[in-house]
Amino acid sequence: MAQFLASELEALGAEVHQRPLGKQPGKEHLDLPPVVIARYGNDKNKRTILVYGHYDVQPALKEDGWATEPFQLTVDNQGRMYGRGSTDDKGPVLGWLNVIEAHRKAGVELPVNLLCCFEGMEEYGSEGLEEFIQAESKGFFKDADAVCISDNYWLGTEKPCLTYGLRGCNYYSVGVTGPAQDLHSGVFGGSAHEPMTDLVHVMSKLVDTHGNILIPGIMDLVEPLTEEEKALYPNISYTMDDLHQSLGSKTSIHPTKERTLMARWRYPSLSLHGIEGAYSAPGAKTVIPAKVIGKFSIRTVPNMESEDVNKLVFDYIKAEFAKLNSKNTLDVWLQHDGKWWVASPKHWNFTAAGKAVKQVFGVEPDMTREGGRYVF
Amino acid sequence: MAQFLASELEALGAEVHQRPLGKQPGKEHLDLPPVVIARYGNDKNKRTILVYGHYDVQPALKEDGWATEPFQLTVDNQGRMYGRGSTDDKGPVLGWLNVIEAHRKAGVELPVNLLCCFEGMEEYGSEGLEEFIQAESKGFFKDADAVCISDNYWLGTEKPCLTYGLRGCNYYSVGVTGPAQDLHSGVFGGSAHEPMTDLVHVMSKLVDTHGNILIPGIMDLVEPLTEEEKALYPNISYTMDDLHQSLGSKTSIHPTKERTLMARWRYPSLSLHGIEGAYSAPGAKTVIPAKVIGKFSIRTVPNMESEDVNKLVFDYIKAEFAKLNSKNTLDVWLQHDGKWWVASPKHWNFTAAGKAVKQVFGVEPDMTREGGRYVF
Repeated sequence: MAQFLASELEALGAEVHQRPLGKQPGKEHLDLPPVVIARYGNDKNKRTILVYGHYDVQPALKEDGWATEPFQLTVDNQGRMYGRGSTDDKGPVLGWLNVIEAHRKAGVELPVNLLCCFEGMEEYGSEGLEEFIQAESKGFFKDADAVCISDNYWLGTEKPCLTYGLRGCNYYSVGVTGPAQDLHSGVFGGSAHEPMTDLVHVMSKLVDTHGNILIPGIMDLVEPLTEEEKALYPNISYTMDDLHQSLGSKTSIHPTKERTLMARWRYPSLSLHGIEGAYSAPGAKTVIPAKVIGKFSIRTVPNMESEDVNKLVFDYIKAEFAKLNSKNTLDVWLQHDGKWWVASPKHWNFTAAGKAVKQVFGVEPDMTREGGRYVF
Repeated sequence: MAQFLASELEALGAEVHQRPLGKQPGKEHLDLPPVVIARYGNDKNKRTILVYGHYDVQPALKEDGWATEPFQLTVDNQGRMYGRGSTDDKGPVLGWLNVIEAHRKAGVELPVNLLCCFEGMEEYGSEGLEEFIQAESKGFFKDADAVCISDNYWLGTEKPCLTYGLRGCNYYSVGVTGPAQDLHSGVFGGSAHEPMTDLVHVMSKLVDTHGNILIPGIMDLVEPLTEEEKALYPNISYTMDDLHQSLGSKTSIHPTKERTLMARWRYPSLSLHGIEGAYSAPGAKTVIPAKVIGKFSIRTVPNMESEDVNKLVFDYIKAEFAKLNSKNTLDVWLQHDGKWWVASPKHWNFTAAGKAVKQVFGVEPDMTREGGRYVF
């Protein structure tokens, strides 16, 4: 796929390179797919837009429930295209080749210089991409004026949208240890402090059923809502029915679409993911697990700095555990963090994209944010 | 092994049968090992003692860490015997054959009639044994005056003990469901009620770190401690060091051996075992699980009747969930129960056993109870 993309781009007159990803410690022996980078146009009087996409896809088998062969592009009688990657993200990548080709055939000059960055490791967490982009920011990408990420979705099915923000994610583990090995609850139940009891108590102090984060100070880090931002929400093409349909249930927390979208995009949330080391199979086992590790994460938003969030989380959890007066041992640590990102929806890049959408689809796009990257 | 036992018993002059276990629905096609039953002596002027043991063992491989071949009985230079089942429970079963043989060789009449019940499914939960014994209680076992279970341990390493009680176990599942499928916490975190949050809150209301059961009414069902029973504890050969050694840590709840043994034997306990349906692997996954099932069990003691315990548990959990005001759905159910058992340590069966222990070991045995059967 990398070679195909490179050849096609070259045939269209672009300058193309295939470059290795940034080095990942311990993975030097892997033959990872290259990043295809390209330049089309080099006019100093034009702005330069860097477009991102990925040519790798998730696995797919016809047996998974596909109506057509997943790796054979099939077009139905309404012109809809089916095949793995048709939306995520081979289709959008090829769209850029179509853009260049269409302009060339029509004899219309592109109004910008294009830089392309098409990677092949997105579905595996884009490992090494950040290091690659950092390095090329002073190299091949040095004159990029703005970036366009071609790997996104519409919020609903009615209107295109432009994304101007993304929540970050701080993922935590909280471990409680007691005995040296798992115990039998018949023999030891009632005579020893149980790590599961302590962990469940601590986890119950993090968030309530209405999604309120119970860790003091977290909400103080959140950028207040301005009237200007608030005004963006009512027009967004989204309904509570859309939410209920994607949930497959009516277990929504908020009564309105505005509050729902704000909860997803511009406020933090805390989710409890599970417990490692406890009994998780079907059926019954009367174990007292010796060591359990709770997993939870906080979706972060402006202006929550990771270190500030960590300190609040660690201090609070240790204080709550201390209140229990247990002889067990607790530790809490950050597994990983990914920073939030937000841009101004009034930036010229969005204005230009909005005009283009209006011209093609006949409607103004919704200005949206994202709740989280799928990789996290 | 069944055939070997049967032949040996016959050679000693016993009446022996090999009988199939009680029928287990759905398992009729399995060729389960038979119960070896036997009678030795039929003197109407003697009491009749039914002895129980099992001839099956857990699997064992030398690679598991055995110093000798697990299925080859090895005797060291101090006369200690090593081999799978030497204590649990082939050794004790063969002990009864040795008893008969020794009496015959010495020309001493056994003071009782013996009935034997040696099964081969104990390590798989003794499936079908209860039905078998129920049926034979009016048949082969009909004149049994008392039972001796030869499948137990000393509490410590110093003194033999006689067990006069066992806690029961009520094992519960509490399920919380919300969305129709697992959700991504980036997209839905903050906008939908999360089943894990609700479950962790409910589970945190069941027991505290000091082992106190928080379900109102449970402790009212417990038989009060009498002075007579209390007096049994101080003499028992057990120390807090014994507990700490078996825990592999000093995470004991109670300061004294008396309170520790009471917590294990004569008071109920509640253990949280784990959560099914949540993320339980190492690493990180930002899932909002759609359906989670918490597992916990209560060790029961006199006079806790299972139905009374269930009602208190179900009512309390439903009330605690209602307080959360969640749109998710909760259900709680009993997975299985096993009843506690307690006998009088002054019964003639224990008096006789105590005298026999004194004669052989030179010390009075400790009168102990058990915290729970291993199968539960």
